[in-house]
Amino acid sequence: MSETLLSSRNLAFELYEVLDAEALTQRPRFAEHSRETFDAALATARTIAEKYFAGHNRKADENEPRYVDGRAELIAEVKPAVDAFLQAGFLNANRDFEVGGMQLPSLLSQACFAHFQAANAGTTAYPFLTMGAANLIESFGSDEQKRLFLQPMIEGRYFGTMALTEPHAGSSLADIRTRAEPAGDGSYRVKGNKIFISGGDHQLSENIVHLVLAKLPDAPAGVKGISLFIVPKYLANADGSLGPRNDVLLAGLFHKMGWRGTTSTALNFGDQGNCVGYLLGQPHHGLACMFQMMNEARIGVGMGAVMLGYAGYLYSLDYARQRPQGRLPDNKDPLSAAVPIIAHSDVKRMLLTQKAYVEGAFDLGLYAARLFDDTHTAPSASERQQAQALLDLLTPIVKSWPSEFCLKANELAIQILGGHGYTREYPVEQYYRDNRLNPIHEGTQGIQSLDLLGRKLAHNGGAGLKQLIRLMAATAERASHHPALDELRQPLEQLVNRLQTVTLALLGDMAAGKVSLALANSALYLKVFGHCVIGWRWLEQALHAERGLVNGAAADHDFYRGKLQAARYFLTWEVPGCHTELALLEARDDTCLSMHEGWF
Amino acid sequence: MSETLLSSRNLAFELYEVLDAEALTQRPRFAEHSRETFDAALATARTIAEKYFAGHNRKADENEPRYVDGRAELIAEVKPAVDAFLQAGFLNANRDFEVGGMQLPSLLSQACFAHFQAANAGTTAYPFLTMGAANLIESFGSDEQKRLFLQPMIEGRYFGTMALTEPHAGSSLADIRTRAEPAGDGSYRVKGNKIFISGGDHQLSENIVHLVLAKLPDAPAGVKGISLFIVPKYLANADGSLGPRNDVLLAGLFHKMGWRGTTSTALNFGDQGNCVGYLLGQPHHGLACMFQMMNEARIGVGMGAVMLGYAGYLYSLDYARQRPQGRLPDNKDPLSAAVPIIAHSDVKRMLLTQKAYVEGAFDLGLYAARLFDDTHTAPSASERQQAQALLDLLTPIVKSWPSEFCLKANELAIQILGGHGYTREYPVEQYYRDNRLNPIHEGTQGIQSLDLLGRKLAHNGGAGLKQLIRLMAATAERASHHPALDELRQPLEQLVNRLQTVTLALLGDMAAGKVSLALANSALYLKVFGHCVIGWRWLEQALHAERGLVNGAAADHDFYRGKLQAARYFLTWEVPGCHTELALLEARDDTCLSMHEGWF
Repeated sequence: MSETLLSSRNLAFELYEVLDAEALTQRPRFAEHSRETFDAALATARTIAEKYFAGHNRKADENEPRYVDGRAELIAEVKPAVDAFLQAGFLNANRDFEVGGMQLPSLLSQACFAHFQAANAGTTAYPFLTMGAANLIESFGSDEQKRLFLQPMIEGRYFGTMALTEPHAGSSLADIRTRAEPAGDGSYRVKGNKIFISGGDHQLSENIVHLVLAKLPDAPAGVKGISLFIVPKYLANADGSLGPRNDVLLAGLFHKMGWRGTTSTALNFGDQGNCVGYLLGQPHHGLACMFQMMNEARIGVGMGAVMLGYAGYLYSLDYARQRPQGRLPDNKDPLSAAVPIIAHSDVKRMLLTQKAYVEGAFDLGLYAARLFDDTHTAPSASERQQAQALLDLLTPIVKSWPSEFCLKANELAIQILGGHGYTREYPVEQYYRDNRLNPIHEGTQGIQSLDLLGRKLAHNGGAGLKQLIRLMAATAERASHHPALDELRQPLEQLVNRLQTVTLALLGDMAAGKVSLALANSALYLKVFGHCVIGWRWLEQALHAERGLVNGAAADHDFYRGKLQAARYFLTWEVPGCHTELALLEARDDTCLSMHEGWF
Repeated sequence: MSETLLSSRNLAFELYEVLDAEALTQRPRFAEHSRETFDAALATARTIAEKYFAGHNRKADENEPRYVDGRAELIAEVKPAVDAFLQAGFLNANRDFEVGGMQLPSLLSQACFAHFQAANAGTTAYPFLTMGAANLIESFGSDEQKRLFLQPMIEGRYFGTMALTEPHAGSSLADIRTRAEPAGDGSYRVKGNKIFISGGDHQLSENIVHLVLAKLPDAPAGVKGISLFIVPKYLANADGSLGPRNDVLLAGLFHKMGWRGTTSTALNFGDQGNCVGYLLGQPHHGLACMFQMMNEARIGVGMGAVMLGYAGYLYSLDYARQRPQGRLPDNKDPLSAAVPIIAHSDVKRMLLTQKAYVEGAFDLGLYAARLFDDTHTAPSASERQQAQALLDLLTPIVKSWPSEFCLKANELAIQILGGHGYTREYPVEQYYRDNRLNPIHEGTQGIQSLDLLGRKLAHNGGAGLKQLIRLMAATAERASHHPALDELRQPLEQLVNRLQTVTLALLGDMAAGKVSLALANSALYLKVFGHCVIGWRWLEQALHAERGLVNGAAADHDFYRGKLQAARYFLTWEVPGCHTELALLEARDDTCLSMHEGWF
């Protein structure tokens, strides 16, 4: 097997054909970059991911973190991997050259990071959380907080976490009970219990900076009374050196079905009444601040789901090419040689489904990263605003769609390997177990569906939705000049049209106060909206494949044919099925809403 | 939580309202039975399942069988559980009174067995395999073979396995390489390697009787050259006492994602050239014989998938009732109390989906058991033949549908528990891991789809299909007298009509030699056919629920309302989606078939 993490040909297609990464080098911020510097970063990421991350993926699964003397102990292979990641500069891939960063576009840093996510989801989580926490302090921290906490995070000496969930409050953050009292010296004393804190303890760094949601004494009820605190594991002395241990106790570890390399912890803050925290950002505005990290994390979770799907797809593809079994249906000669299972139509179906899910979601994830670049570096303010509006709208899809459908891809990878796929002697069952977390953390599928339908659609006067519809129409218009793409374009156009109508109707219901009925089937809406977005992205990929068939090298024709076939699969096999859900949405079907608890 | 394995109210509904178990007591074979004896057997099964099986389900998962000195060692709790099962007589639940059996109808023994499957899939496999192997020897064994091997199996002293798969040949049994040479004394010397042999070694019984597929020296090529052999772990002396160890070597254990309580073994037969086997049935007819056990196993696997889904459904239902989280969408008061999550429409959706899948498949599994009874005890020969034809047709559905959709139910159970569901501190993640085996073993989903479309439909002049269509039409006719059921009946009728047309067209293609194209999308056909069958069974359940609302006790009204709502969910949310697949089948869509290997 030549490639195990992702297809570098497909990555090049995305970066340089579909998403035009080179155009970014025209922007002042990326002017010192070129395709050569991009490719060098990608090659480094791939090398380190293969060399330091992939090798202990199974071992970390089999040897999950252990609770020893109040600490979480990881296997020895994690630290060298994380160190290699740090030394290569990926922790600060997007940061300015002047602070030692690589000043890469997000599109490129996301593409680099994808290699680590495919190689080892568990180990990758530690630097991932650190990057998000550092960005949050960078956005909202005081100069002093940046000096004491951000700087050592940039240097890779401190790691970070996000501490939201409490035993009684997961999705409902309004109900958190963790409290923070002013200590009189500008700091606070935090008291409360948090669970499911990934990376909540380890020995990978000198210190761990927990970003903790808590309520001040004068907090209003609900989400408007949540504040955000920096709570380090060790206090920092004024000179930046490590101070005494803070009152943060590792209360226990969770034992997960998968993703075992990332320690999931229960943390007690302030059991001794002396847990020091520092307010980050404005009082009572913590949730809004935290959403910066959460949104980054949601895109990261989506890409993580993609990459687990991708790794499983490549493994099962290679297996299907190597494994002889059976004969084609019209061959009744038992003496003839068995064919590789990739020759069987149903195996092709399972591979093509995986390809459509994984490469469709991969495109969307990178597209979102490209949008993120536009929010910061697009030439005009209106372009930056449009990009932000669209990214806000797409975030629940970027998070939830891969979490559902790339998990399904992993299910199919197991199926292709058959009995072997079900054993831990092969990697695909771990991908499946790892990926099952993604529809849950950083906002469940249900939360994403409410975020999309109940919040994002109408946000900013529907700016994101209008922009999305414009872009979809433009893609369809370009596709209409390619008769070969008619059968792909038409199902998408039908879906977009009907989805627009349903959307307006549901928004109208909500405006009229019929909120419960409008939101009752938000899961169906999320699925259809996601398929619409992925269908659009596949039509875009198909357009570039058509171009490649005309302009590209002959050696690439198979690659482009595969793109067209996967686009055909998604748009003619998957997209039409959405009309079932649309009919239910149109009818405001209340089958679920009207089910009584006592009837179960 | 009052019930953890299955709902006894629902079981009573199935047995005494839908499937009329009491009518079986009119048949001579079951004349000594009554609802009282049935219920006594069920109560015993439930007690033993709860007391001996459920308790070590997690422990067996965490402590999978270990390879020690050439033996597979299980945890200590397995044997007392299996012994309790044996002592209660469930191993011989269907056998004659005169050999110590309970002479129960299969409908009842299946219902009893379901409790064990829900409590502990792994431990249940040992007696399950033994029952199938014993039945096979009973059907095809010589008197001597029955005396030496069947009798001790009936007594619970010998256990059984089925040994089909080889390292290079899983689905393609035509290619097995295990050989059997006549030894001159009527016995054979077997040589070959088998993998994935469940229960291939343990210390639960004095001896293990492997039923091994192998080829004789003069065997024709392909499946027509496969013979079946009894290969005991220990030879049996002529007086029935245990003889010396046979040349069967435990070569190793497989380490599975789930279902870990059942040891999965690699067995080497004849490494020392001295593995004694006994031909069971006629030479070269081994596969046909084995299919008796395989068909029983397929129905058992389907029911096992149902029961894992059932256990997960009940757990997540109880959790949803207990867990407060969030408020309803139209309540903006953060000071109001959180509601139990069962009040949220999306949680109701996930519960209702589970209920529709689990109770729909449970009904089908018991219906199949009822058909099995009819094949043996229906009054007339034509009824017995009709039952056999229908059971043959339905077997791939009984096996594959729950394997896919009750796995999906387990996925939803995890989702309802959120982060907790992903941890091994709760049982639902194990159900999910256990259930992932079911779409693979005893014939993958792909194999089932080819069996249905390529073999079973046209079998016997389509007798099974005609019978099924008659029964579906009769159900629809009865439903047409209930206007309240119109919205449930109509989608089913539309599906049945279109499916019939597609079926005839595909059979026509095959008859015309267009086999590859006709079978190319067999997976879609399997899904649609399965949904049609389950939709029919839900309409049957809805009819009985309507009757219950009229005739039943007021205390049961909630139960019947729940049935109607689940039927509505399945027939109006799930069944209409099948038209997407039907359109692809009608078009003989070749998206998958025409995908080239080089395009991936």
